[in-house]
Amino acid sequence: MNKIKSIFLIVFVLSITFSCQDKVDDSGDLSEIKSAHPSLILTKQGVKDIRANLGSIPIFDKTLAATQKEIDAAIENGFDVPVPKDYSGGYSHETHKKNYTLMQKAGVLYQILEDGKYAKFVKDMLFEYAKQYPSLPIHPKPRSYARGKLFWQCLNDSNWLVYTSQAYDCIYDYLSEEERNTLETDLFRPFADHISIDNPQFFNRVHNHATWGNVAVGMIALAMDDDQLLDRALNGVKDDNFDPNIKDNDGGYIRKDGQEIGFFANVNEPFSPDGYFTEGPYYQRYASYPFLIFAQALQNKKPELKVFEYKDSVLIKSVTALLNLSDADGEFFLLNDAQKGMSYFNTSLIATVDIGYHFGGNDPELLSIAKKQDEVTLDDAGLAVALGIKEGKEKPFVKNSIELSDGANGDEGGVGIIRSDGLELVFKYTAHGLSHGHYDKLSFALFEDGNEVVQDYGMGRFVNIEQKGGGNYLKENTTWAKQSIAHNALVQNETSHFKGKYDIGSKYHSNKYVFSVDDENLQVASAKEENAYPVTKLHRTMVTIKEEDYDNPYVLDILRVASEGSNQYDLPFYFLGQIMQTNFEYLKLKVPEILGKSDGYQHLYKEASATVKDGNIKLNWLRNNKFYTYTAVTSNKDDVIFGRIGANDPDFNLRNEQTLILRKKNAKDALFVSTIESHGTYSPVSEVAVNAYSNIKNIEVVHDSKEYTAIQIDTKNDKSNVFIISNENNDNEAEHKLKIKDKEHSWKGSYVLIENKKL
Amino acid sequence: MNKIKSIFLIVFVLSITFSCQDKVDDSGDLSEIKSAHPSLILTKQGVKDIRANLGSIPIFDKTLAATQKEIDAAIENGFDVPVPKDYSGGYSHETHKKNYTLMQKAGVLYQILEDGKYAKFVKDMLFEYAKQYPSLPIHPKPRSYARGKLFWQCLNDSNWLVYTSQAYDCIYDYLSEEERNTLETDLFRPFADHISIDNPQFFNRVHNHATWGNVAVGMIALAMDDDQLLDRALNGVKDDNFDPNIKDNDGGYIRKDGQEIGFFANVNEPFSPDGYFTEGPYYQRYASYPFLIFAQALQNKKPELKVFEYKDSVLIKSVTALLNLSDADGEFFLLNDAQKGMSYFNTSLIATVDIGYHFGGNDPELLSIAKKQDEVTLDDAGLAVALGIKEGKEKPFVKNSIELSDGANGDEGGVGIIRSDGLELVFKYTAHGLSHGHYDKLSFALFEDGNEVVQDYGMGRFVNIEQKGGGNYLKENTTWAKQSIAHNALVQNETSHFKGKYDIGSKYHSNKYVFSVDDENLQVASAKEENAYPVTKLHRTMVTIKEEDYDNPYVLDILRVASEGSNQYDLPFYFLGQIMQTNFEYLKLKVPEILGKSDGYQHLYKEASATVKDGNIKLNWLRNNKFYTYTAVTSNKDDVIFGRIGANDPDFNLRNEQTLILRKKNAKDALFVSTIESHGTYSPVSEVAVNAYSNIKNIEVVHDSKEYTAIQIDTKNDKSNVFIISNENNDNEAEHKLKIKDKEHSWKGSYVLIENKKL
Ligand SMILES: [Ca+2]
Ligand SMILES: [Ca+2]
Ligand SMILES: [Ca+2]
Ligand SMILES: [Mg+2]
Ligand SMILES: [Mg+2]
Ligand SMILES: [Mg+2]
Ligand SMILES: [Mg+2]
Repeated sequence: MNKIKSIFLIVFVLSITFSCQDKVDDSGDLSEIKSAHPSLILTKQGVKDIRANLGSIPIFDKTLAATQKEIDAAIENGFDVPVPKDYSGGYSHETHKKNYTLMQKAGVLYQILEDGKYAKFVKDMLFEYAKQYPSLPIHPKPRSYARGKLFWQCLNDSNWLVYTSQAYDCIYDYLSEEERNTLETDLFRPFADHISIDNPQFFNRVHNHATWGNVAVGMIALAMDDDQLLDRALNGVKDDNFDPNIKDNDGGYIRKDGQEIGFFANVNEPFSPDGYFTEGPYYQRYASYPFLIFAQALQNKKPELKVFEYKDSVLIKSVTALLNLSDADGEFFLLNDAQKGMSYFNTSLIATVDIGYHFGGNDPELLSIAKKQDEVTLDDAGLAVALGIKEGKEKPFVKNSIELSDGANGDEGGVGIIRSDGLELVFKYTAHGLSHGHYDKLSFALFEDGNEVVQDYGMGRFVNIEQKGGGNYLKENTTWAKQSIAHNALVQNETSHFKGKYDIGSKYHSNKYVFSVDDENLQVASAKEENAYPVTKLHRTMVTIKEEDYDNPYVLDILRVASEGSNQYDLPFYFLGQIMQTNFEYLKLKVPEILGKSDGYQHLYKEASATVKDGNIKLNWLRNNKFYTYTAVTSNKDDVIFGRIGANDPDFNLRNEQTLILRKKNAKDALFVSTIESHGTYSPVSEVAVNAYSNIKNIEVVHDSKEYTAIQIDTKNDKSNVFIISNENNDNEAEHKLKIKDKEHSWKGSYVLIENKKL
Repeated sequence: MNKIKSIFLIVFVLSITFSCQDKVDDSGDLSEIKSAHPSLILTKQGVKDIRANLGSIPIFDKTLAATQKEIDAAIENGFDVPVPKDYSGGYSHETHKKNYTLMQKAGVLYQILEDGKYAKFVKDMLFEYAKQYPSLPIHPKPRSYARGKLFWQCLNDSNWLVYTSQAYDCIYDYLSEEERNTLETDLFRPFADHISIDNPQFFNRVHNHATWGNVAVGMIALAMDDDQLLDRALNGVKDDNFDPNIKDNDGGYIRKDGQEIGFFANVNEPFSPDGYFTEGPYYQRYASYPFLIFAQALQNKKPELKVFEYKDSVLIKSVTALLNLSDADGEFFLLNDAQKGMSYFNTSLIATVDIGYHFGGNDPELLSIAKKQDEVTLDDAGLAVALGIKEGKEKPFVKNSIELSDGANGDEGGVGIIRSDGLELVFKYTAHGLSHGHYDKLSFALFEDGNEVVQDYGMGRFVNIEQKGGGNYLKENTTWAKQSIAHNALVQNETSHFKGKYDIGSKYHSNKYVFSVDDENLQVASAKEENAYPVTKLHRTMVTIKEEDYDNPYVLDILRVASEGSNQYDLPFYFLGQIMQTNFEYLKLKVPEILGKSDGYQHLYKEASATVKDGNIKLNWLRNNKFYTYTAVTSNKDDVIFGRIGANDPDFNLRNEQTLILRKKNAKDALFVSTIESHGTYSPVSEVAVNAYSNIKNIEVVHDSKEYTAIQIDTKNDKSNVFIISNENNDNEAEHKLKIKDKEHSWKGSYVLIENKKL
């Protein structure tokens, strides 16, 4: 009986399919063929258009040829569906991971090349999974708060389903009704249930994990045309036993009580109206794939949901925001947990850029990024990009200075990026960044020509390198990389911001004070942090000043600390490179000492120290054949410490890089003022050093009150500039007057740079 | 009366010049116009040919345009001839240095472009020097053993004269006889005397200093047509008060008693018959300019001396030898004192390659190097290269495995370079290398794709970076960089080879034992050192083995130590990169300890240590996104130390890189056996690790006797190879038999690799 029913159903479905096809061909009205296949990332019309253009769209043709070569080899070699066993980096993990990308690609090739061998490859593999899945226990590795079945964590199971759904959609019509029934019953539905109903602590969150879970369920729902399952993806599962106190493996709370859940909640909360993703660009890169791939499928299948218009088109905005969070080489700035070297060349960014182009109004600047990526997605979006490039519509993607607000409503601080010639200054005054956040309020990093000059350490992890803790987060990520002292951030009394506690830190955010970049010669970003330490308020202002006499702009950094108690303040400066010279005497210790006991200090060696004088300290160093100088205002009560990362690091997990720490002891209020210059070059080929020395003769605090701070910068060309910032009034229109050294200055707006010849 | 005489002379000289010119046009016989000008690097015929080809020889035209732009700007800006005052890096030093290159270039431009403004620029500057020189005292900076007048050392004064002679030659005919008299009397002759007669301890040596001195005097002699002065250049000055005990600033003896001196002695002694320069490629690069520029001038002016045929054409051979001493990027291997990053893109190499091509039989492979350099010399040689490139004669310069003998007769050891796929293994068994030599007998370095993997530290100096000790050698060059422990070399009882004493070390050399590279799958270099330590003999064999199953060849390193006493042996391994994993437990010290008291040990921190078992230790590390593994045979009496450079370094002059030291204590004989593999890759963009682990399961010493050493290498593909080397007979034709584990092996020649499936 079952068989007869199946045959009937097949005939029925085929007839629908054919009539739908007819309709497409006649009218092109996509909304009426919502249950046709393919319809997630490829549409019937898209496939037609692709086939019509093949051979004349170079970037697409090239990607297709490479994909075909890869999949042909995979078909030749056969596949394996091993018993789940390993953490990341291990065989079973890497093989299941490889399998889903192979299936996704083979499915797409089947549609584009109309060669049944690709469909058969997907089908055979799916049936092997369907055979094993029903009897699979929870994955044997116990480390995750939400263990998967194929993988040690539901997160990877969700990855699998996001890709496999696309493959299933592509071969849907190739399969018989009975075959589809088997796959849906034995594999897809229980698979979707495991990552949702069985693991609400994973699925019902606002977090990149939940995004993947929601999207996985949503993609298979769309592939199976199951609106009930789609509802689960969009709105979460009912979870009556929710315990607001449980945390995930990163120590993050699962969710706040009463929080919205499901896909739209995951779009709404972490993205600011500017498209900044609160976890930072490294995780935005990771999350952007599910967000955009699902939005694409939803748009194709449920256009009435208008997903790309949601929250004032935030998903489209997020594409440009993310690209703006990369350095000159396309490598993402290191905000929160982030591995160095991740860039917009990552596969998920190829989809992100292509979808952003296709569904976001064909921004021609995105074509130049796609061209650099030299690869497109093999779908409707990729075709649009390939055609755009072919038609020469491309424009350079110009990265200017930009501020990206944080918080669902854009009112929880942000990231200020100042770009001035080759320099990129990244100033962080965001909210915490969920469980991947670092305790580094008002920290910064400086890049030149795509190279780090003053670094953010990034994360303590070697992703997917099994030798290093299975490729997962290392304990040093918590004990070192997240701590305040690991950053170019102020640390009070050797204690991290918010005591390094996520539940405290995640309640607060810094606040933007000024972000003004219209004058390329004087760009200013200023922000305040009032919660990192009780009764201590921080106000940091970072400025780039371009002097016509010098080759490069320089950075002015003013950090004001106001407290009610007496404290020790440390301001680390993580310069990268080799020390050339200092203008102060320091005493190198015979053997290094450990700098402190906790909060990251236990990982720093003290290598040298100095007690400095009233005036300036200068540190001149060489990095990548460029000369840099850090100049800081000091008082004779300050200490300078040369530190090196690497203490209490039993497995050599840390990079042994240097820092200079400026320490002020027994201070209530404090003012840290410094400049950073990139001033010269060295060639190891010609052995010529050009402009090896700082152009700054002296920097001096010429006024500091509750209302105003004024810094005088004397340069070697006998110029003397005074930068004044109003500390309490950031109104653009406010009029100010201030007498400094018997001279009255007046200006409009929150800051001013007074340039003049020195008297 | 003086004036009348001058006018008479001018007329006389002009008439000679004109008649010579006529001769050139008619016959082209250069030997008859030896006193015509220009005739050093440009000839009258060369200038004609250049002018005829201008506009149709792109690489020459490009160089010419850049030079013209540079000199036009210099003429526009005017010049300065400051009072000599500074060390390298300081203003007076850098300005005088700039001046001589400007004059050289302006002189050449005058000839090629026939524009008098270039001649005038040279003339004006020369007259400014001529005005100042007679009253110049010895340079005020006291550091040199041979102080100059324009510069702190005669070496730089010689540089000045080598370039300035070319400029003088170019404008010779532009000047009046009286002007020439003034310049020769007030400037050139006393200048040449100062660096020769006044400083025989500088001039009468076999050393790169003396080479520059000889060539400087020789070049001005040729420019002035002064055969007596030329004789001084070629044969040295009479120096009756020679004291064989005096040393130079590097601690090198000035010269051995009875040693030949002058230019030809400086060609003969430091160059081996293969063209290897005993100081190493960094100094060969520096020295090759004076050698070749003077050879060119001599060939043009005194062809009867047949300088390019001298010593079986060693100067021509030296060009190819030097290029072969560079990595895949053209950067020179770090042998002896050498700064990292120096490459064949250095200006002196442009002259070297062009002269090598023009006077060395037009080797088409040199054209491909010239093309990469993208610049030629603006003279006859550069024209020849430009025409060769234009005519498409270029062939790739293929760098194969090569041995370069050391010693004037080629019998003082050498350098063995094994190239296998992307790997370049540099094995050093040379003589000491004069005063720039390091105490690193039988040391090695490993490069992959132009990147250092197992490094030689190079020198302790930041050349021309004034902040670092005036840009000169730092004391750490002596206390650290030259010491044996700073190298991948065996150290006995924490004492450097030859006790780190130049007078001992310079008496000896290592000896080649085997260099056999015909089989690209099995390349062998083996050498012995019997004098570094009294009564201890060292024999090291370095092999690359290419297994078809693996992507990359691996290195096998066998170091045999035979002593009459009981000693401690340390073998450091300077891997670059981050430790991923070890197969042994180690204890990281709470704070580092200083490893030793002297001989470089005082600069090493001990960070961790381990006592290991009988079997193998493995160190797996990551460098430039490649995975490497070092596997070494150990006994349970061995210690392993993780060290880091940087102790006793009060000015942060050292780079804080790591090492692993394998230590055998209380040993008489010892055998160090290890393999180095490059086996995998990591991408921070895709976050995929490929082949992260070693392919070697086990290495074992299966035989070790006075006569033979045999190593069994078991790999993960269940292969088992046995490499056997005959320790006392390196005859290619000798027949050997050896029973290992009851199996008899027989072979012909000094070594064999027996490949078979493991039983
Ligand atoms: Ca970069
Ligand atoms: Ca290189
Ligand atoms: Ca190199
Ligand atoms: Mg961080
Ligand atoms: Mg733009
Ligand atoms: Mg060395
Ligand atoms: Mg060749």
